[in-house]
Amino acid sequence: MPFARNQWYVAAYGEDIGDALFGRTICGEPILFYRTADGRVVGMADRCVHRRYPLSAGSRVGDRVVCGYHGFTYDPDGSCVAVPGQSRVPRTARVPSYPVVEQDSLIWVWIGDAAAADSAAIPRAPWLDSPDYTTVRGMEPLAARYELLVDNLMDLSHETYLHAGYIGTPEVAQTPITTETDEDAGVVYARRRMKDVECPPFYANSTGIKGRIDRWQDIEYRPPCLYLLHSRIAPTGLEPGPDGDDSAANHAEIVYAITPETEHSTFDFWMVARDFARDDEEVSAFLAESNRTVVLQDVTALNLLEQAIAAEPEGYQELSINIDTGGLAARRMLHRLIEQS
Amino acid sequence: MPFARNQWYVAAYGEDIGDALFGRTICGEPILFYRTADGRVVGMADRCVHRRYPLSAGSRVGDRVVCGYHGFTYDPDGSCVAVPGQSRVPRTARVPSYPVVEQDSLIWVWIGDAAAADSAAIPRAPWLDSPDYTTVRGMEPLAARYELLVDNLMDLSHETYLHAGYIGTPEVAQTPITTETDEDAGVVYARRRMKDVECPPFYANSTGIKGRIDRWQDIEYRPPCLYLLHSRIAPTGLEPGPDGDDSAANHAEIVYAITPETEHSTFDFWMVARDFARDDEEVSAFLAESNRTVVLQDVTALNLLEQAIAAEPEGYQELSINIDTGGLAARRMLHRLIEQS
Amino acid sequence: MPFARNQWYVAAYGEDIGDALFGRTICGEPILFYRTADGRVVGMADRCVHRRYPLSAGSRVGDRVVCGYHGFTYDPDGSCVAVPGQSRVPRTARVPSYPVVEQDSLIWVWIGDAAAADSAAIPRAPWLDSPDYTTVRGMEPLAARYELLVDNLMDLSHETYLHAGYIGTPEVAQTPITTETDEDAGVVYARRRMKDVECPPFYANSTGIKGRIDRWQDIEYRPPCLYLLHSRIAPTGLEPGPDGDDSAANHAEIVYAITPETEHSTFDFWMVARDFARDDEEVSAFLAESNRTVVLQDVTALNLLEQAIAAEPEGYQELSINIDTGGLAARRMLHRLIEQS
Repeated sequence: MPFARNQWYVAAYGEDIGDALFGRTICGEPILFYRTADGRVVGMADRCVHRRYPLSAGSRVGDRVVCGYHGFTYDPDGSCVAVPGQSRVPRTARVPSYPVVEQDSLIWVWIGDAAAADSAAIPRAPWLDSPDYTTVRGMEPLAARYELLVDNLMDLSHETYLHAGYIGTPEVAQTPITTETDEDAGVVYARRRMKDVECPPFYANSTGIKGRIDRWQDIEYRPPCLYLLHSRIAPTGLEPGPDGDDSAANHAEIVYAITPETEHSTFDFWMVARDFARDDEEVSAFLAESNRTVVLQDVTALNLLEQAIAAEPEGYQELSINIDTGGLAARRMLHRLIEQS
Repeated sequence: MPFARNQWYVAAYGEDIGDALFGRTICGEPILFYRTADGRVVGMADRCVHRRYPLSAGSRVGDRVVCGYHGFTYDPDGSCVAVPGQSRVPRTARVPSYPVVEQDSLIWVWIGDAAAADSAAIPRAPWLDSPDYTTVRGMEPLAARYELLVDNLMDLSHETYLHAGYIGTPEVAQTPITTETDEDAGVVYARRRMKDVECPPFYANSTGIKGRIDRWQDIEYRPPCLYLLHSRIAPTGLEPGPDGDDSAANHAEIVYAITPETEHSTFDFWMVARDFARDDEEVSAFLAESNRTVVLQDVTALNLLEQAIAAEPEGYQELSINIDTGGLAARRMLHRLIEQS
Repeated sequence: MPFARNQWYVAAYGEDIGDALFGRTICGEPILFYRTADGRVVGMADRCVHRRYPLSAGSRVGDRVVCGYHGFTYDPDGSCVAVPGQSRVPRTARVPSYPVVEQDSLIWVWIGDAAAADSAAIPRAPWLDSPDYTTVRGMEPLAARYELLVDNLMDLSHETYLHAGYIGTPEVAQTPITTETDEDAGVVYARRRMKDVECPPFYANSTGIKGRIDRWQDIEYRPPCLYLLHSRIAPTGLEPGPDGDDSAANHAEIVYAITPETEHSTFDFWMVARDFARDDEEVSAFLAESNRTVVLQDVTALNLLEQAIAAEPEGYQELSINIDTGGLAARRMLHRLIEQS
């Protein structure tokens, strides 16, 4: 099994889910999501208990879902309340319900044993709905396994080559990273601190900084799903104050949610939250367009890799170097989560 | 093996087969059909004995077929009569011939042991070329296994949900059915008799009845291929006479031929023969268009189910209720036919 | 394994390979080709040693190749000379290099054990870049296994049926062939000498001969890759002189290179070199267009056969006749090459 179960995954953005029935496969499981009249998002198996018709192809009557094939009708908790041609509903007529939590503008769903779901364990990304940040975002489907996206994001030296002209500069690939793993908390940290370097167009055009910068890339990956890139951009030499105050610098909180759809396909949710030029809609449009372009460059590359894996000979072995330390730590942690589940 | 062999299947409508070479795969077997000069339809394996080239990609010379690759030439009985570069034709040069019968405007082909073919065993649908009926018809290919179409047709309560606005009304799903199985004759009967119910647009617009109706749905399934729905529509209270005469009511003989192409694809032949408004071309056009729409609604749903089956976990179990009695009886009979073949 | 390894295969035409990175899969192995500044063509595995990214999706810096994902940089011999984030290049950082030879306007690549590559063993087709011949050519990808193209080319009686109106006439299929196999040299010869026959449009329009001809088809197949058809077209009765001089006849040296891409796909390189109407551009255009049409007729037929094979029952057996002697000899020789490799 390639997925860690008993884990929270991002299924959608909060605003994706409304009255309409919304079907999405997460970790190979087809799930129906919708928002009830009281605003709560519910998740249940998207497969009628009768003849497996997708409930998302049906309709709603109030908070209930009616299967579009034979009319089996379900409460938001997945229990069947009506069937055609008879008044008695069989006791076992029920589809599995999935714990769902809406937090930080994201819809999280628990895959695995529902009894073990603990919403306090959902990792946070508070910038996404904070009034102190402005966020642009999107989602691109990937025809590649999610591990390839984890690899991609854990090693940003690829920015220099795949994303030159956007976020990549020569210094990214040249600057070594520091990696740290917190096994108890389940986090992999990878930090690259660049001093007195070129400012890539992505930040030059959005922050307005002319000239050279100090650029921090502090990665915080919380497997399996949430990836945070704390990005600090400041004119060279500008340091945080002795009291920790860093408000003179520019910060972009770049968030990815890495959600397996199937063994060979992935949802690549991307968000860029910033504390600068917050009301500037041109900057928002520029960052949205630029980051989407960067993500699509990754999509193209990772889809190629998925095809390369499919064609490669038995026993092919990768060669890892220093830049891969973070990615390898992430793989080990993912591997352990899969084994535990 | 998912197909019942030693059975007759509908391969095409009679008028589909003319001078032209017509290739169609039935139960996984590619077959060439064409009509000889004397009007007889012949069937033979659509695979040259030499290098397996499809004979349907070749040409005809009189009643003979010439392979389009190297010119191997076949008589209508499948025996090879000429090969290139030599005058002697090898003794074993012959492709299998398939028993074919044209009856009730349908081309029936026998799949299995040709010696066991008995044309008297072909089930009848005499309305289709009777002067007392007017028929509209069509065929839609299905990207789904044929069993899903059998399920679909055996339980018409789905009309209420999938075909609302055409043939479905609330009463269809609410009215219980009576099911009967004749193991010796190999027939499953399922009857739903609705009294004083709403007339769906399909019948209101074609019969001209205004007001409520008695509606009978008498299913007669003769596995594996032929499905008959004897549909009676009459103003409420109009009963057949004591002598059995029912000419005052409207009758639609709805015929489906369910022919497996491959394990995961099916030919869905549909025909609607009526004894009312027989010369009214507007009614013919309306019924043809409406029934095609209904069939395409089924096609969409069944193709979704085929995908759902492909993705579902090991050990998934359906839940059956009363409405499924006819479908389950049909499955058992099909299962026995497969085991016998 | 369906391919003969330790063999030379045609990867491209010489003029296909220039400064640009050119990726092509040969016998299932993705290979990067390009031409260095000194004009030499190099081949190396098209798979970065780091994370398998296709090097052909990267870029060149001088004679070196830079991976488009993380910047691993390779010399033309496949050795890695730079990696990101560290100055030390791991000792094992190297991709396999493929022996490449450019000869007779073709790029030959050796698949298998590089140490065993002997460029003297590459079969010749000297007409292709001889000043005494004019050549037209092309390449069509085939969605079919290469053996089907070998079969096709070894038995030209199919010209009568598949290529009527181009190169096929009734006499081709009627005239017996002589087959000879030279096991030591690894050649299959198949000769068809037609006397006083119809001249097909392909040759009538290009040679200008009006009236009947003597037509020789002398096949020389050097498995696995090179197929030569020495075609002689002359007015009936014109024989080579006693000294062997045959300059009064017209000769077309028709060359095919049959290169497996994968188990189920093939590159079909075709070339027509002629010693007549050498400066006539209309004849060149006519022959290029006609031969491409003929090749596309083969492509259509062979793709159909590949699908027929995929669908055919276990245990299906072909029936072979005299015309297949050459093809069967070719298969045996190929089979032995595969077993040896």
